[in-house]
Amino acid sequence: MPSKQSQTVKELYRGWTRAMIESREPDIDGWGDLTAEPRGVDYLETDAGGVPAMWAVPKGCAEDRVLLCLHGGGFMSGSMYTHRKLYAHLAKAAGVRALILEYRLAPGHLHPAQVDDATDAYAWLLGQGVGARHIAFAGDSAGGGLAITTMLRARERGLPLPAASMPLSPWVDMEVLGGSYESNRDKDAFFYREVVQALADLFLGTDGDPRDPLANPLHADLTGLPPVYIQAGGDETLVDDAHLLEEHARKAGMEVRLDVFPGQQHSFQMTAGRAPEADEAIRSLAAWVRPRLGL
Amino acid sequence: MPSKQSQTVKELYRGWTRAMIESREPDIDGWGDLTAEPRGVDYLETDAGGVPAMWAVPKGCAEDRVLLCLHGGGFMSGSMYTHRKLYAHLAKAAGVRALILEYRLAPGHLHPAQVDDATDAYAWLLGQGVGARHIAFAGDSAGGGLAITTMLRARERGLPLPAASMPLSPWVDMEVLGGSYESNRDKDAFFYREVVQALADLFLGTDGDPRDPLANPLHADLTGLPPVYIQAGGDETLVDDAHLLEEHARKAGMEVRLDVFPGQQHSFQMTAGRAPEADEAIRSLAAWVRPRLGL
Repeated sequence: MPSKQSQTVKELYRGWTRAMIESREPDIDGWGDLTAEPRGVDYLETDAGGVPAMWAVPKGCAEDRVLLCLHGGGFMSGSMYTHRKLYAHLAKAAGVRALILEYRLAPGHLHPAQVDDATDAYAWLLGQGVGARHIAFAGDSAGGGLAITTMLRARERGLPLPAASMPLSPWVDMEVLGGSYESNRDKDAFFYREVVQALADLFLGTDGDPRDPLANPLHADLTGLPPVYIQAGGDETLVDDAHLLEEHARKAGMEVRLDVFPGQQHSFQMTAGRAPEADEAIRSLAAWVRPRLGL
Repeated sequence: MPSKQSQTVKELYRGWTRAMIESREPDIDGWGDLTAEPRGVDYLETDAGGVPAMWAVPKGCAEDRVLLCLHGGGFMSGSMYTHRKLYAHLAKAAGVRALILEYRLAPGHLHPAQVDDATDAYAWLLGQGVGARHIAFAGDSAGGGLAITTMLRARERGLPLPAASMPLSPWVDMEVLGGSYESNRDKDAFFYREVVQALADLFLGTDGDPRDPLANPLHADLTGLPPVYIQAGGDETLVDDAHLLEEHARKAGMEVRLDVFPGQQHSFQMTAGRAPEADEAIRSLAAWVRPRLGL
């Protein structure tokens, strides 16, 4: 039985769905209001190699270990502000810094602007003297897919790979094929196939290829990528993206862990500090990533 | 006609009133969700002479000028987190740093814990090398009263006075006598006389004196205090606190300005970045305080 607190995600998404039906703008800024203040964390905006970004620095953390964090929002919304607290919770639990990126958004900036921005910021971070082995990527929703594709782009550019990645409710399948669009249609409160298809079209543009490996890692060669820990909600239409990514990574020989949280919505970790499921998810991610960062 | 955006304050307060009627806890944490992210501001938690506090540092601000900020919440709720964005908006508009205090709360800590904490933090700030002439006090609601009483306590302790103070919807009258409790009873969405009387009782404790000058500046000698700029909402039950404070300050020879914003609720400035009235209020405060800080 999902906690009452975790249902605030569903209520928010239902509000977004109502807004879409009534041709109003969904209040994406309110996303971050789901998350409690982690407290004891400093926030500093910076320029990460041309990409606006925000450091989240928990008091007493290991400052030489960094989570590069990629927010969700379908590549056309969300910001380092909506996801500030989510990634600060994760950084605080892991005892490391987070660098939360504000990559360029569609439709003003089509793919590959997002993966290029994230790779530029990663190169900048390496240039700051943070070792690749001391960096993990994290991302939710669109940012979860980007956590994988940024490693591919980094490899193309000859950069060393990070120690690990943590995609949360990743959106990877730009062909929008997952069976869970149907099986979870009555449980998910917003991410209907039509919505996700529209986002894919916006992201890729009219000439875009939904099988481009840098947009859709299900069509990429994942051989040699570092360990990945995927989380998803059992009630989300995108849970099959998580299963498909797990399967594809496993076939490529990657170390993979997937946890599906029953009864939870897309990006339920946004209720960190309020809902026990989100807190459990964050604790679990932190415990998994710490040894991989040498902590 | 008040803007639609400014009505979110009223909706929030109505929710608090409903919660009280249904014996639920009002969601005070949600207060801060009224405020848009100011952007371009760093936040650093610190220990201000034993008082937990948060620096809000707008990019490119005059770092040697500081607003000492005292959050509202009836002396028993609110925090540097609920009011982070409000005071960051004010600091950004003024081009200075803000130090947002987390003073101890009632009923765990009765008066004078609050005014003592604020005075300790002010002494600490002076000790950091920030000149009194480069400091202004700001506060909303209970924090608005505290902005005045902290100057009185500082004077008692032989500290130099700051350059100015800016009480927003100040709550100063611990006897709860204002005529606007009746005249605005149908317009204010939460701060009914009974609510404010209960807060005064919690703050002062059973043996407390509602005419103690350090709790109720209407009974204090305000002679020699620096210029004060008071703002209040025309629809709030506490608007008479603003009028009474203005009158009392003027009689003491202080330079006083009072702006009442028609149709606005208590602490309507919390909608900064969203409602035009709040943005106008913030701009006006910033323009007033800058020359007083030598800018």
